[in-house]
Order: sequence, then C-alpha cells, then structure tokens
Amino acid sequence: MFEDRSKKRTELGELGEFGLIDHLCKDLKNRNASTIKGVGDDAAVIDNKEKQMLVSTDLLVEGIHFDLSYTPLKHLGYKAAVVNFSDIVAMNGTPKQLLVAIAVSNRFSVEALEELYDGIKLACEKYKVDLVGGDTTSSTSGLFISMTILGEAAKEDIVYRNGAQESNLLCVSGNLGAAYLGLLLLEREKEVYKANPASQPELLGYDYILQRQLKPEARLDIIKLLKENNIKPTAMIDISDGLASEILHICKQSDKGCSLYEDKIPIDASTSILAEEFKLIPTIAALSGGEDYEVLFTAEISDFEKLKSLKDVHIIGHITDKNSGANLITSSGAAIPLTAQGWDALKENED
Amino acid sequence: MFEDRSKKRTELGELGEFGLIDHLCKDLKNRNASTIKGVGDDAAVIDNKEKQMLVSTDLLVEGIHFDLSYTPLKHLGYKAAVVNFSDIVAMNGTPKQLLVAIAVSNRFSVEALEELYDGIKLACEKYKVDLVGGDTTSSTSGLFISMTILGEAAKEDIVYRNGAQESNLLCVSGNLGAAYLGLLLLEREKEVYKANPASQPELLGYDYILQRQLKPEARLDIIKLLKENNIKPTAMIDISDGLASEILHICKQSDKGCSLYEDKIPIDASTSILAEEFKLIPTIAALSGGEDYEVLFTAEISDFEKLKSLKDVHIIGHITDKNSGANLITSSGAAIPLTAQGWDALKENED
Repeated sequence: MFEDRSKKRTELGELGEFGLIDHLCKDLKNRNASTIKGVGDDAAVIDNKEKQMLVSTDLLVEGIHFDLSYTPLKHLGYKAAVVNFSDIVAMNGTPKQLLVAIAVSNRFSVEALEELYDGIKLACEKYKVDLVGGDTTSSTSGLFISMTILGEAAKEDIVYRNGAQESNLLCVSGNLGAAYLGLLLLEREKEVYKANPASQPELLGYDYILQRQLKPEARLDIIKLLKENNIKPTAMIDISDGLASEILHICKQSDKGCSLYEDKIPIDASTSILAEEFKLIPTIAALSGGEDYEVLFTAEISDFEKLKSLKDVHIIGHITDKNSGANLITSSGAAIPLTAQGWDALKENED
Repeated sequence: MFEDRSKKRTELGELGEFGLIDHLCKDLKNRNASTIKGVGDDAAVIDNKEKQMLVSTDLLVEGIHFDLSYTPLKHLGYKAAVVNFSDIVAMNGTPKQLLVAIAVSNRFSVEALEELYDGIKLACEKYKVDLVGGDTTSSTSGLFISMTILGEAAKEDIVYRNGAQESNLLCVSGNLGAAYLGLLLLEREKEVYKANPASQPELLGYDYILQRQLKPEARLDIIKLLKENNIKPTAMIDISDGLASEILHICKQSDKGCSLYEDKIPIDASTSILAEEFKLIPTIAALSGGEDYEVLFTAEISDFEKLKSLKDVHIIGHITDKNSGANLITSSGAAIPLTAQGWDALKENED
C-alpha cells in the first residue's frame, strides 16, 4: 500500500531531541486558518472564533496496540492518526490539528521514525489536518505513540453519545468485522513464519481485509453526507472496540435499550469467507472484533426514507426503552442480550 | 509533603478499561465555563469565543523522566500536570483543560493510579484547570504518562519565543538550580540505600531543595504580576532544560545574541551550600540543571524600573545582535559562549 524507504540507518542520538523534532517536522505546512502557530514554541496556538473545539487523546503501546513484526511503520503512523481523526468525526466534527508525542528506544533509527511520520503526514494531508505539536523522548523499551487531536464543530452540530431516544433508528456505516479478520490473518502468518522462516506469507488476495486492518479510514465522508441530507444523528460513536461494545456505550449513556438485527449487520463477503476459514461466526467478528472505525449512530425515525437511500449507510436496528435491555435479534428471531467483550489486556501483561 | 494512602491493592484487571477511567474520574468537577463536555465521550468539547487557544503535549516515561524509587506517585502526578501548565504560562496564557493518557503494566495497582490521579487533581484544583479527557491502557513494562494541556489567551497577549529585540532586558523569575540539586540528593540517597537497605535516608533539612524537584510550581503568578504592571514580555519560555538551553532557544528563534551576567543569576543559598557538598559550581547547576519551571523572558528596556521593583523577578542580562553571540559574562568579566548540555538520554538507553 505504501512504498518502502531505502534502508539507511541514522542513530537517534546523532540528532538529539531538538534536532529530531526539527528534522521530523521541517516540511510541515499548515492548512487551517485557525492554526496560528504550529510546532516550535511552548504550545501551539489555535484561533477559534465561532465554533466549539473538540479534543481527544490516545496512547498507543508497542506489543499492546500494534505489532511491528507485521505492521509497516508508515501504516502505523497513518492508522494512529486516522484513529484519532475518527474520534472527532464521532462527535460530528472536523479534525483540524494534531499533536504527536513519541517515546522510542534506540532500537529505532531516524529513518524508522521518518517512516512513522510519513504515515502521520499522509493522513494529515488526506484529512486536511495540521500537525502542530510534537515531543520526542526516549523509552527504556519499545515504541509509544501519544496523539492528541483537536477538531471543531458548530455548537448545534455536535453529537454526543447520550442523545438516543426511544424508537430512534440504529445505523452504521460501511461494513464490520474485516479489520479483525485482517488481524487474525497477520497473526496466523506470523506464527507460520516463526515456525518456518523460509515460508512465504500467504497474503495474496486478501488486499481488502488487510487494508481494513492496516490502513483504516475515518468516516468524515459519512458525516458530510448526513449533513448534506439534513440528517442530524441523535447519538454517535465510532467503532473501535466492536459493534456490541459501542452500542452498549450509547444505550448506557442514553439510558435506553435497543434491538439490533443480526441479519442487518453489514459484513463484506470477503470477511464472511475468511471468517469461515477461521471457524468464526462472521457476526461475532462484527460484534466483538473492533477497529473498523465506522460510525455507529442513532437518528429520528422520520429520517428513515432518507437514510435508506444513502450509500454505505445501513439501518441495523432501533432504540427501545431501558427495561427491554440491549438485545441482538438473531436471524431465527431469538433475542440475546448484547455483551461487550471485556477489555482484559491488563490481565494479560506482566511487568 | 503529601500524606500516604492506605496500602490496599486492587488489581487493574478487576476494573477493566472503562471501569478504570470512570473510577479515576468519578469525582471530577469542571471549573471553566469553556468546558462544555469533559471525560466520557469520544472527545471533550471546549467553547472558545473570544480568545486564542494554546495547546501543548508531553510524554513522560518511567526510568527516563522519573524514578519511582524516590518519587511518590502523588508528587509525580502533581509535577507532570504542573509541567504542562508551565508550557501554557510560558506563552503568557492561562491553562484551562487537561487530558491525561496513561499506559501501565499490572505491576501497578488501582490504588497506585489513584495516588497518581490525586496528585493530578490537586494540581488541577490549585491552578483551576479542568481534567477533561483520559485514556488508560496497558504497557508491557513500566508507567507512561501522556498529558495534553489546553490554555487560552487574548491574541494580543500571547508571547512567542521569537520576539526578543536588541537591547531588550533578559529576566528570570524565582531562583535556579535547586531542582537539579534535589535530584542529585535523591539519587545519592538511592545509592546509599541500595548499598545498605538498613540505612535511613538523610533528607532532613533539605525540604526546600526536595520540594523544588518533587513538587515544582508553574509561575502563573509571575505572568499575572507582569500583566498587572503593564509589562508585556517580548519573548518568553519556561525553564525545563536549564537556563542556558532556554536562552539559546530564545536567541536562535529571535535571531539575536545575548549577554548573561553570571553574578545576576538568582541562586538560593541552600542550593549553593548543597552544590558545594556535591563539588559542583552553583552556576553550572543553574545553567544546565533544568526542571526549575521558572519563566525566562525578555522585555523592553523602558520597563527597567518597573521590573526592578517586582518581587521574585530578576534582570540577568540583555539581548544583543546575533553576531555578538550568546555569552555568559563571568564575575571576572570574561565572556564565555553559552552551550546547551545536549539531550543525550537517547544515547544511554538500550532496548
């Protein structure tokens, strides 16, 4: 998906902290009028006259959030940035300024960090975001990436998680589960490679699935499409932890229940085929896989006809009263309470 | 300086990601009218009508930026927050909203993170800052703290690093070098303890020095004092890496030189006495020690009389043309080019 940089290696120590930031940020151009001052002072300066500002932060850890044995650094940078943009999109806002802080051990070369930044810059270019701040420091082991994204929206446009009302439609963009299958595929090939380093990875024909895992996109196009069609979601969230977990966030914060129809969940054919190969029910990949970065939202039932006509938007259920609970209605008509797969990464890692 | 929490231990895994954030942020109250929405959605929402927004980010790494063997977690949280506030102060702005992301291994208990957050919250309370965002994740080893601070200032009040003009006065607040001596003291006691765990740390009588290292303050009071006296600095920076390094930043970005007078550098008597014990020239501790978080600024010479009368503000030199270079004028009248001690932490750490 990205081309390779030549394999030159410059030690980080050769540049030093200030040299490194200058080096990584030397060709930055600001695109937003609200960016008054970017990298190079104690703080970036943002002008914000009419709109409300959105801000979100994220910390990514090697070995927890990414595995560099199968994640090219340029993809990692692109994905890390896009995942942050997606948080702003999920508020119905436009991402505007990004700040990046990284901690690296000297296992990494300057060229490796350039790759990472190339991916970050490419994402910034595509989404018209300004990279306005940076901090680089050393780590005792591994790579840590901290990103903070600023975005903006008119006050009346902002969509929170807590606005879902009874009988609202539950909608999702794109399709789900592919990113998780991409991860399983990469992990399988890693195991094969570890067992036999002479083996060739069998990744041909899985372009779409791999792209969903390695190079996801934030659905800025969907929130624009909704706005063009005068549809304002009542609640919205992006899908980072899996459909089930995100629906439960909306239900909990809105104090409501929901019915989610299994046969309405959009799953790409390639996802279903690969899921079968992994002996996995595709619905499970969609519900619990995560990292799709699609938007999940609720909308007034009066928008039904408009929503039905929108490309890449799917109506997958509706909001109910709280006492009915949050349920998956299976293809056979059974109602199963939705559960979020727990975030148990903390249990797995010993110091 | 802070009291101890009882030594209960709750495993992080017992709460899970969402539980942990809810738990750590459950008693937060927002103080600023501009904070529309804090923790609990995809992004915080900040209203900013008239002013410009300042934003800065920082990543702190265990073993690089702090040593938990002698840094209480509450102090660490307090200091990490204050250091970020100081970045906003250094732009002549007021810190308003803080976002905190942490990565921890399960070596840490919930109580340990509560201690850390207690320190963060105490700093927020003291400086009237709202904690509006958070992310907790696991790390494979150690503690990583990423903070992003938002602040505001009227457009005409913002002070950059690049505004110093020839003949401007060079000024600094407070006194310098104590934080570095505090670090040396703590490291000495650590070595003594490692050699003989039955030994008692000899830290009595060093309260001031230790406080400068463990619980620094951002000089919001100084920028208020300057404003009250109608003094607008022409350039400003906070002292995190040592006086020499910060002066060189101002000179480089303003394209100027300077004369810094050794005998004008404010050094507390306790710093000088302890420096002697460590066989260190106090001026060196002030020039290269860092972590004082005092503000260094330049001002019009017409403000000389006003500046002279201000409590805790010291005139330590003046700005010259670029070709004269940046020099330390020693007590004996010799001019020595200022050099910044390189940031070489990256050279020291192997993966």
